[in-house]
Amino acid sequence: MLSKAVVKYINSLQIKKYRHQHQAFVVEGAKSVKELLQANFELQHLFITEAFYHENTKTLAKGYHYSLVTEQELTKAGTYASNNAALAVAKMRSVPPLQPETSDFIIALDDVRDPGNLGTIIRIADWYGINHLVCSENCADFYNSKVIAATMGSFTRVQTHYLDLAMWLKEQAGASHKIYGASLAGDNLHTLHLKPKGIVVLGNEANGIRPEVQAHINHLIKIPAFGQAESLNVATATAIIIDNFKRN
Amino acid sequence: MLSKAVVKYINSLQIKKYRHQHQAFVVEGAKSVKELLQANFELQHLFITEAFYHENTKTLAKGYHYSLVTEQELTKAGTYASNNAALAVAKMRSVPPLQPETSDFIIALDDVRDPGNLGTIIRIADWYGINHLVCSENCADFYNSKVIAATMGSFTRVQTHYLDLAMWLKEQAGASHKIYGASLAGDNLHTLHLKPKGIVVLGNEANGIRPEVQAHINHLIKIPAFGQAESLNVATATAIIIDNFKRN
Repeated sequence: MLSKAVVKYINSLQIKKYRHQHQAFVVEGAKSVKELLQANFELQHLFITEAFYHENTKTLAKGYHYSLVTEQELTKAGTYASNNAALAVAKMRSVPPLQPETSDFIIALDDVRDPGNLGTIIRIADWYGINHLVCSENCADFYNSKVIAATMGSFTRVQTHYLDLAMWLKEQAGASHKIYGASLAGDNLHTLHLKPKGIVVLGNEANGIRPEVQAHINHLIKIPAFGQAESLNVATATAIIIDNFKRN
Repeated sequence: MLSKAVVKYINSLQIKKYRHQHQAFVVEGAKSVKELLQANFELQHLFITEAFYHENTKTLAKGYHYSLVTEQELTKAGTYASNNAALAVAKMRSVPPLQPETSDFIIALDDVRDPGNLGTIIRIADWYGINHLVCSENCADFYNSKVIAATMGSFTRVQTHYLDLAMWLKEQAGASHKIYGASLAGDNLHTLHLKPKGIVVLGNEANGIRPEVQAHINHLIKIPAFGQAESLNVATATAIIIDNFKRN
């Protein structure tokens, strides 16, 4: 059973301030909770339905403490419209400082605010085997429920580093990293022969890359347009750009 | 001013049944309403703020009937968390039957249910100059507010055809159209030399392409994976696939 106090605690974790105060976050749904368990995160709470129990007996037998609850209780406690599987409260993990090699391929986000976009980008990074994502301090919070949900489990594999992006890029430029930026004024991605190394910066949904970040970019690239849409969603653009780097 | 009766009517158009009964749909926000006006849709209502009026005097002078309202009224009537620009109720347009040439390049969606995904795919199609989208009858409704919002104005340019997808594909296969399907069991997209013609089918978010649709596909293609994510979001996958066809 889910006590009122626990439901209140879970609800409080919808707010960034309380997540960071408690160093804990909520993971919902079968796929995400399964990936969480497989990645050995430390758990504060694990609430599951009987159906989830029967599908995951082997993983759960590793020694997880869990409580059986009903679908109604899970749905009430969480943010999903319905949840017939599981909800966990996990402890945040510390992310070791990023010290990239010039052979690394890294995606950096400048002020990407929408949690769905950030989550989708984490999933894309994981698909393409990119283990590090850099975020400016104003990006959506990695531990936001909508981010976690949109990653479809990839939050367990992609390390996301929040930092002062302009300052960090300045250091990387000094250390001879190639720094690309996505821009409508850039070179046509289809005509370049790109190797998957360096840093690719994508900007805010409405305003693109800030000037202080743009200052450290040494190659602007553009997804060629064939029609009349003015722009692409930032997660869509990230996917197309990574694919172009990876196909060579 | 927005009367109670009009607000009630606008709210009723959030439901598919009433949209199709009234042959009308709601468009919200500066960008979308601007594109709507430029595309000469027939309007039932146009509510705008003073700020939107001043930014669009030239377009509005073409003879549109509009009412000035406050940001509070707009937000209350619509689905956006906030709307400081405009809300319109437009008449649906009939979509002429699709009779593709074998030189056409068409995207077909089998049972794509999420409105955000459908809207994003319409925006991607528009970016790549693809004018026709085919949807199985169970796909999200083109006129859903979330679809319209996610298209960022591209709903005015991409004709979306709802039909019995299995039957339609059977006809196209008979007429020598090449039919591709996105599948984790397909050939690696990066090693193929694809020309942007034919039909590309993408399937449901959870279940992929239905067997009765799969039966008419003559070439399965796959976005190569380099990491550990099990799948990509369907809109992300659509973007990467189209980009691969278009880069040749």
